[in-house]
Amino acid sequence: MSTALFSSTVQHSLDIAGIFVFATSGALLAVRRGFDVVGMAVLAVVTSLGGGLIRDLVIGAVPPAAVTDLGYFVTPLAATAVVFFLHPEVARINVAISVFDAAGLGLFCVTGTIKAYEHGLGYTAAAGLGVATAVGGGVLRDVLCNEVPSLLRWDQDLYSVPTMVGAGAVALLIRFHALTPATGVSAVLATFLLRLLAMHYHWRAPRAYNRRTPNLQNDP
Amino acid sequence: MSTALFSSTVQHSLDIAGIFVFATSGALLAVRRGFDVVGMAVLAVVTSLGGGLIRDLVIGAVPPAAVTDLGYFVTPLAATAVVFFLHPEVARINVAISVFDAAGLGLFCVTGTIKAYEHGLGYTAAAGLGVATAVGGGVLRDVLCNEVPSLLRWDQDLYSVPTMVGAGAVALLIRFHALTPATGVSAVLATFLLRLLAMHYHWRAPRAYNRRTPNLQNDP
Amino acid sequence: MSTALFSSTVQHSLDIAGIFVFATSGALLAVRRGFDVVGMAVLAVVTSLGGGLIRDLVIGAVPPAAVTDLGYFVTPLAATAVVFFLHPEVARINVAISVFDAAGLGLFCVTGTIKAYEHGLGYTAAAGLGVATAVGGGVLRDVLCNEVPSLLRWDQDLYSVPTMVGAGAVALLIRFHALTPATGVSAVLATFLLRLLAMHYHWRAPRAYNRRTPNLQNDP
Repeated sequence: MSTALFSSTVQHSLDIAGIFVFATSGALLAVRRGFDVVGMAVLAVVTSLGGGLIRDLVIGAVPPAAVTDLGYFVTPLAATAVVFFLHPEVARINVAISVFDAAGLGLFCVTGTIKAYEHGLGYTAAAGLGVATAVGGGVLRDVLCNEVPSLLRWDQDLYSVPTMVGAGAVALLIRFHALTPATGVSAVLATFLLRLLAMHYHWRAPRAYNRRTPNLQNDP
Repeated sequence: MSTALFSSTVQHSLDIAGIFVFATSGALLAVRRGFDVVGMAVLAVVTSLGGGLIRDLVIGAVPPAAVTDLGYFVTPLAATAVVFFLHPEVARINVAISVFDAAGLGLFCVTGTIKAYEHGLGYTAAAGLGVATAVGGGVLRDVLCNEVPSLLRWDQDLYSVPTMVGAGAVALLIRFHALTPATGVSAVLATFLLRLLAMHYHWRAPRAYNRRTPNLQNDP
Repeated sequence: MSTALFSSTVQHSLDIAGIFVFATSGALLAVRRGFDVVGMAVLAVVTSLGGGLIRDLVIGAVPPAAVTDLGYFVTPLAATAVVFFLHPEVARINVAISVFDAAGLGLFCVTGTIKAYEHGLGYTAAAGLGVATAVGGGVLRDVLCNEVPSLLRWDQDLYSVPTMVGAGAVALLIRFHALTPATGVSAVLATFLLRLLAMHYHWRAPRAYNRRTPNLQNDP
């Protein structure tokens, strides 16, 4: 059974779009932290290609697509140039970037799960690597910026949980031979919508249950 | 010469036990840092599987055991669940966790060295990767928590030195064709005991020799 | 076309020299941060071998040269021993270390680009990995020290830009079949000189263009 969701041209265009959005968010963070143009380019590359790079190293798909496909490598540099010259305008559309970022999350957790499965991993591990594909770049970005990855912090809206839902759904779809373009796209959209809802309603993950001070649980 | 110390069933059970203990320490640190349940799971996975993952990427054993063996992947999630619901009880047995952690160190530095040697590395490099197997997950955990890895700090009891002794001993045993289950287990126990002694007597590694202010050397 | 610049003996000696210098800078930073001898050795290894390790993992050259060549692995430990006993003297020649470090940058960005190209990468990706070979170890060192990598900061003299020039020049030389020992060494020297000039004149990379407060752009 082929697990390709889209034609390779469509897939490639979607990948490029997702990389561009992730790279833009990385370059904007670099501007906010006062980094120079080199730091902007490094953060753009790491944020947008880091997750796929980790996945490809783990599944043994070397050299990773991030370095064999020129388009993948040049896209974050283009995003850096856009932010460099237009960052006040780009920063003003921050909400739009968050929405596109949510779309990128949905796309990458689904395609990452499929790629990991195609390289022989089991369902659970494939879903885990799908999540890593979607969120790994952001973790590397935060580590380089000397911050605790927002993924780990309880005071951030759910970010990885939507990707877990999407990646888990795709793994189940593969398991039950039900992965089609329609169901795959549904998983992308479900992840996208869950992330948007999490941002809108400030959904958060629980912290460890504390019987002694339950009322203080979620107060800072 | 086969370098397997134990039957594969015994080996697998010991690995799972070691992963569980390391994962518990990672999840507990996440609770202390106020991370949510996602952060607990991420730190549990990284702490317990990170060292082996680094070793497997370096020796080219991909996909790494951490993702091909479902038990390895699920164990840290189980440890997260235990800590999530029982963390006051788990935190209370902190000393017990330190003792189990020392046992995990001994086990992983020995089995890591053997696995690296079996993949064609030289004796010195195999010992180095055995050390990385044992301590690598903790380093990744500390980096994600935005802390200087305790491995590097002079005000921490010896942690990596016992694993260097254990890994070095195993490399010598392999070199002189003397690695048997008995001698291998002795190396595990020696590492375990050295770490316990280091904790009990607060053994520390020296800092660079400073001829100008020798008396101030180890004062903070 | 063979892309080897030097005989393998010359290449190996140059590599060892470059690793020694990078390792010395790593061990010195560990002393300044008050780390113990284990921390010195870890930082020396990571700083000097980390860039090549990242490159080899990405291009699929596993096990990496860093662990298969005993000389590569032992050199940072020797540098650690030198710094451990002689650090006041070593620290006093800080300028000399900066100069040698610049030479190491030039060497590693050129040989890294060539090695990546030989493993089948395209020109742009090969240059990118040449840069990663030269600067990757320093980034890992800074992350372990819990600092924002100096690569990203605008208040540091140009460090990666000279390696981009050198790696890009080598990629162009390969593209136009003009890579010879003479042109290759010229790329090493150009990188070296650019880095020396950047240090001498405190050249810095620009930050994102800010039309609202252009005069404040480069004031802290």
